[in-house]
Amino acid sequence: MDSLPAFGALESLADTYCAGWSESNATSRLAILRAVVAEDGTYVNPRHDLAGVQALAACIGEVLATWPGARFMRTSTVDQHHGMARFAWRMTGADGQSIVDGVDFAQLNASGKLQRIVGFYGPLEVRQD
Amino acid sequence: MDSLPAFGALESLADTYCAGWSESNATSRLAILRAVVAEDGTYVNPRHDLAGVQALAACIGEVLATWPGARFMRTSTVDQHHGMARFAWRMTGADGQSIVDGVDFAQLNASGKLQRIVGFYGPLEVRQD
Repeated sequence: MDSLPAFGALESLADTYCAGWSESNATSRLAILRAVVAEDGTYVNPRHDLAGVQALAACIGEVLATWPGARFMRTSTVDQHHGMARFAWRMTGADGQSIVDGVDFAQLNASGKLQRIVGFYGPLEVRQD
Repeated sequence: MDSLPAFGALESLADTYCAGWSESNATSRLAILRAVVAEDGTYVNPRHDLAGVQALAACIGEVLATWPGARFMRTSTVDQHHGMARFAWRMTGADGQSIVDGVDFAQLNASGKLQRIVGFYGPLEVRQD
Protein backbone atom coordinates (compact mmCIF):
# COMPACT_ATOMS: atom_id res chain seq x y z
CA MET A 1 0.00 0.00 0.00
CA ASP A 2 1.53 3.26 -1.06
CA SER A 3 -0.90 5.35 0.96
CA LEU A 4 -3.10 4.98 3.99
CA PRO A 5 -6.44 3.32 3.31
CA ALA A 6 -9.55 5.40 3.85
CA PHE A 7 -11.01 5.38 7.35
CA GLY A 8 -13.05 2.23 7.81
CA ALA A 9 -11.82 0.70 4.55
CA LEU A 10 -9.85 -2.03 6.27
CA GLU A 11 -12.75 -2.84 8.58
CA SER A 12 -14.93 -3.24 5.49
CA LEU A 13 -12.28 -5.40 3.85
CA ALA A 14 -11.99 -7.60 6.94
CA ASP A 15 -15.78 -7.89 7.15
CA THR A 16 -15.96 -9.02 3.54
CA TYR A 17 -13.19 -11.51 4.20
CA CYS A 18 -15.15 -12.86 7.20
CA ALA A 19 -18.29 -13.01 5.04
CA GLY A 20 -16.33 -15.19 2.64
CA TRP A 21 -15.41 -17.47 5.52
CA SER A 22 -19.11 -17.72 6.39
CA GLU A 23 -20.48 -18.44 2.90
CA SER A 24 -21.46 -22.04 2.31
CA ASN A 25 -22.19 -21.60 -1.41
CA ALA A 26 -18.91 -22.32 -3.19
CA THR A 27 -19.50 -19.97 -6.12
CA SER A 28 -20.58 -17.10 -3.90
CA ARG A 29 -17.72 -17.75 -1.51
CA LEU A 30 -15.08 -17.53 -4.21
CA ALA A 31 -16.64 -14.33 -5.59
CA ILE A 32 -16.66 -12.72 -2.15
CA LEU A 33 -13.09 -13.74 -1.41
CA ARG A 34 -11.85 -12.53 -4.79
CA ALA A 35 -13.09 -9.06 -3.89
CA VAL A 36 -10.60 -8.83 -1.02
CA VAL A 37 -7.92 -11.51 -1.46
CA ALA A 38 -5.24 -11.42 -4.19
CA GLU A 39 -5.55 -14.16 -6.77
CA ASP A 40 -2.16 -15.51 -5.66
CA GLY A 41 -2.70 -14.63 -2.01
CA THR A 42 -1.35 -17.03 0.60
CA TYR A 43 -2.95 -18.24 3.79
CA VAL A 44 -1.44 -20.06 6.71
CA ASN A 45 -2.92 -20.88 10.10
CA PRO A 46 -2.05 -23.60 12.62
CA ARG A 47 -3.94 -26.17 10.52
CA HIS A 48 -3.60 -24.99 6.91
CA ASP A 49 -0.91 -23.69 4.59
CA LEU A 50 -2.04 -22.83 1.08
CA ALA A 51 -1.60 -20.50 -1.88
CA GLY A 52 -4.20 -18.89 -4.11
CA VAL A 53 -7.68 -17.56 -3.48
CA GLN A 54 -9.20 -20.67 -5.04
CA ALA A 55 -7.34 -22.92 -2.61
CA LEU A 56 -8.46 -20.70 0.25
CA ALA A 57 -12.07 -20.90 -0.90
CA ALA A 58 -11.82 -24.70 -1.10
CA CYS A 59 -10.24 -24.87 2.35
CA ILE A 60 -13.06 -22.79 3.82
CA GLY A 61 -15.52 -25.13 2.13
CA GLU A 62 -14.00 -28.01 4.06
CA VAL A 63 -14.16 -26.07 7.31
CA LEU A 64 -17.82 -25.21 6.73
CA ALA A 65 -18.57 -28.83 5.83
CA THR A 66 -17.10 -29.84 9.20
CA TRP A 67 -18.95 -27.06 11.04
CA PRO A 68 -22.24 -26.56 9.15
CA GLY A 69 -23.71 -23.15 9.84
CA ALA A 70 -20.50 -21.76 11.27
CA ARG A 71 -19.98 -18.03 10.94
CA PHE A 72 -16.96 -15.77 11.23
CA MET A 73 -17.03 -12.18 12.36
CA ARG A 74 -14.49 -9.49 13.06
CA THR A 75 -14.32 -8.70 16.78
CA SER A 76 -11.82 -5.83 16.83
CA THR A 77 -10.96 -2.75 14.87
CA VAL A 78 -8.27 -3.23 12.24
CA ASP A 79 -4.85 -2.01 13.29
CA GLN A 80 -2.47 -1.26 10.43
CA HIS A 81 0.81 0.35 9.47
CA HIS A 82 3.09 0.05 6.42
CA GLY A 83 0.57 -2.17 4.62
CA MET A 84 0.50 -4.66 7.49
CA ALA A 85 -2.78 -5.24 9.30
CA ARG A 86 -4.10 -7.24 12.22
CA PHE A 87 -7.59 -7.90 13.47
CA ALA A 88 -9.34 -10.30 15.80
CA TRP A 89 -12.18 -12.58 14.76
CA ARG A 90 -14.52 -15.17 16.22
CA MET A 91 -15.88 -18.37 14.75
CA THR A 92 -19.34 -19.30 16.03
CA GLY A 93 -21.30 -22.47 15.44
CA ALA A 94 -24.80 -22.82 14.03
CA ASP A 95 -26.05 -22.39 17.61
CA GLY A 96 -24.30 -19.04 17.89
CA GLN A 97 -21.88 -20.32 20.51
CA SER A 98 -18.22 -19.44 20.16
CA ILE A 99 -15.99 -22.16 18.72
CA VAL A 100 -12.68 -20.34 18.51
CA ASP A 101 -11.27 -16.83 18.62
CA GLY A 102 -8.27 -15.79 16.62
CA VAL A 103 -6.15 -13.02 15.20
CA ASP A 104 -5.22 -12.65 11.55
CA PHE A 105 -2.21 -10.70 10.35
CA ALA A 106 -2.17 -9.68 6.75
CA GLN A 107 0.02 -7.98 4.23
CA LEU A 108 -1.84 -5.84 1.72
CA ASN A 109 -0.78 -5.57 -1.90
CA ALA A 110 -0.63 -2.40 -4.00
CA SER A 111 -4.31 -2.87 -4.88
CA GLY A 112 -5.28 -3.00 -1.23
CA LYS A 113 -6.13 -6.71 -1.32
CA LEU A 114 -4.93 -9.31 1.15
CA GLN A 115 -1.70 -10.76 -0.22
CA ARG A 116 -0.49 -12.79 2.69
CA ILE A 117 -2.62 -13.87 5.63
CA VAL A 118 -1.23 -15.47 8.79
CA GLY A 119 -3.76 -16.64 11.33
CA PHE A 120 -3.29 -17.57 14.96
CA TYR A 121 -5.80 -19.13 17.34
CA GLY A 122 -6.70 -17.65 20.68
CA PRO A 123 -5.14 -14.96 22.83
CA LEU A 124 -1.46 -14.96 23.67
CA GLU A 125 -0.81 -16.72 26.98
CA VAL A 126 0.59 -14.51 29.71
CA ARG A 127 4.16 -15.36 30.59
CA GLN A 128 4.27 -17.28 33.86
CA ASP A 129 7.98 -17.62 34.64
CA MET B 1 11.80 -23.68 9.71
CA ASP B 2 11.61 -27.23 8.49
CA SER B 3 10.88 -28.65 11.92
CA LEU B 4 9.40 -27.52 15.19
CA PRO B 5 11.79 -25.68 17.47
CA ALA B 6 12.67 -27.29 20.78
CA PHE B 7 10.36 -26.52 23.70
CA GLY B 8 11.26 -23.12 25.09
CA ALA B 9 13.64 -22.33 22.24
CA LEU B 10 11.46 -19.54 20.87
CA GLU B 11 10.97 -18.05 24.32
CA SER B 12 14.74 -17.99 24.69
CA LEU B 13 15.09 -16.42 21.25
CA ALA B 14 12.50 -13.76 22.07
CA ASP B 15 14.20 -13.05 25.40
CA THR B 16 17.54 -12.55 23.66
CA TYR B 17 15.85 -10.28 21.16
CA CYS B 18 14.36 -8.24 24.01
CA ALA B 19 17.78 -8.15 25.69
CA GLY B 20 19.11 -6.63 22.48
CA TRP B 21 16.41 -3.98 22.65
CA SER B 22 17.48 -3.21 26.24
CA GLU B 23 21.25 -2.98 25.65
CA SER B 24 22.62 0.55 25.61
CA ASN B 25 26.13 -0.45 24.56
CA ALA B 26 26.17 -0.40 20.75
CA THR B 27 28.74 -3.16 20.30
CA SER B 28 27.05 -5.47 22.78
CA ARG B 29 23.64 -4.71 21.30
CA LEU B 30 24.68 -5.66 17.79
CA ALA B 31 26.31 -8.86 19.05
CA ILE B 32 23.18 -9.85 20.97
CA LEU B 33 20.89 -9.09 18.05
CA ARG B 34 23.09 -10.99 15.60
CA ALA B 35 22.55 -14.11 17.70
CA VAL B 36 18.83 -14.08 16.93
CA VAL B 37 18.17 -11.79 13.93
CA ALA B 38 19.19 -12.65 10.35
CA GLU B 39 21.88 -10.37 8.92
CA ASP B 40 19.38 -9.21 6.29
CA GLY B 41 16.39 -9.38 8.61
CA THR B 42 13.71 -6.72 8.26
CA TYR B 43 11.86 -4.81 10.94
CA VAL B 44 8.78 -2.66 10.68
CA ASN B 45 6.65 -1.14 13.41
CA PRO B 46 4.34 1.88 13.37
CA ARG B 47 7.34 4.24 13.57
CA HIS B 48 10.18 2.41 11.78
CA ASP B 49 10.73 0.46 8.59
CA LEU B 50 14.24 -0.88 8.07
CA ALA B 51 16.33 -3.72 6.71
CA GLY B 52 19.38 -5.41 8.19
CA VAL B 53 20.40 -6.26 11.72
CA GLN B 54 22.83 -3.32 11.76
CA ALA B 55 20.03 -0.89 10.91
CA LEU B 56 17.89 -2.46 13.62
CA ALA B 57 20.67 -2.08 16.17
CA ALA B 58 21.11 1.56 15.19
CA CYS B 59 17.37 2.17 15.42
CA ILE B 60 17.27 0.69 18.91
CA GLY B 61 20.19 2.94 19.84
CA GLU B 62 18.05 5.94 18.93
CA VAL B 63 15.13 4.61 20.94
CA LEU B 64 17.34 4.04 23.98
CA ALA B 65 18.84 7.51 23.59
CA THR B 66 15.33 8.93 23.72
CA TRP B 67 14.35 6.72 26.67
CA PRO B 68 17.55 6.22 28.71
CA GLY B 69 17.33 3.16 30.90
CA ALA B 70 14.37 1.71 29.02
CA ARG B 71 14.02 -2.05 29.07
CA PHE B 72 12.05 -4.51 26.98
CA MET B 73 10.75 -7.82 28.21
CA ARG B 74 8.63 -10.60 26.80
CA THR B 75 5.25 -10.74 28.53
CA SER B 76 3.68 -13.80 26.88
CA THR B 77 4.63 -17.24 25.75
CA VAL B 78 5.64 -17.50 22.10
CA ASP B 79 2.93 -18.85 19.84
CA GLN B 80 4.18 -20.33 16.58
CA HIS B 81 3.22 -22.42 13.56
CA HIS B 82 4.77 -22.88 10.12
CA GLY B 83 7.79 -20.77 11.05
CA MET B 84 5.60 -17.82 12.03
CA ALA B 85 5.69 -16.61 15.62
CA ARG B 86 4.03 -14.00 17.80
CA PHE B 87 4.72 -12.78 21.30
CA ALA B 88 3.81 -9.85 23.48
CA TRP B 89 6.33 -7.51 25.07
CA ARG B 90 6.48 -4.47 27.32
CA MET B 91 8.75 -1.46 27.26
CA THR B 92 9.43 0.02 30.69
CA GLY B 93 11.24 3.21 31.55
CA ALA B 94 14.21 3.67 33.86
CA ASP B 95 11.68 3.99 36.71
CA GLY B 96 10.22 0.58 35.89
CA GLN B 97 6.90 2.04 34.81
CA SER B 98 5.32 0.75 31.64
CA ILE B 99 5.75 2.95 28.56
CA VAL B 100 4.12 0.79 25.92
CA ASP B 101 2.97 -2.77 25.35
CA GLY B 102 3.12 -4.44 21.99
CA VAL B 103 3.03 -7.62 19.97
CA ASP B 104 5.68 -8.71 17.52
CA PHE B 105 5.06 -11.14 14.68
CA ALA B 106 8.03 -12.76 13.13
CA GLN B 107 8.98 -15.09 10.35
CA LEU B 108 11.85 -17.43 11.16
CA ASN B 109 14.43 -18.42 8.59
CA ALA B 110 15.85 -21.91 8.03
CA SER B 111 18.47 -21.24 10.70
CA GLY B 112 15.80 -20.38 13.23
CA LYS B 113 16.66 -16.68 13.27
CA LEU B 114 14.21 -13.81 12.96
CA GLN B 115 13.96 -12.96 9.26
CA ARG B 116 11.06 -10.58 9.24
CA ILE B 117 9.66 -8.80 12.27
CA VAL B 118 6.41 -6.83 12.27
CA GLY B 119 5.58 -4.99 15.46
CA PHE B 120 2.29 -3.49 16.60
CA TYR B 121 1.61 -1.29 19.61
CA GLY B 122 -1.00 -2.05 22.22
CA PRO B 123 -3.88 -4.49 22.35
CA LEU B 124 -6.42 -4.73 19.57
CA GLU B 125 -9.41 -2.51 20.25
CA VAL B 126 -12.68 -4.34 20.70
CA ARG B 127 -15.13 -3.72 17.88
CA GLN B 128 -17.81 -1.28 19.01
CA ASP B 129 -20.28 -1.23 16.12
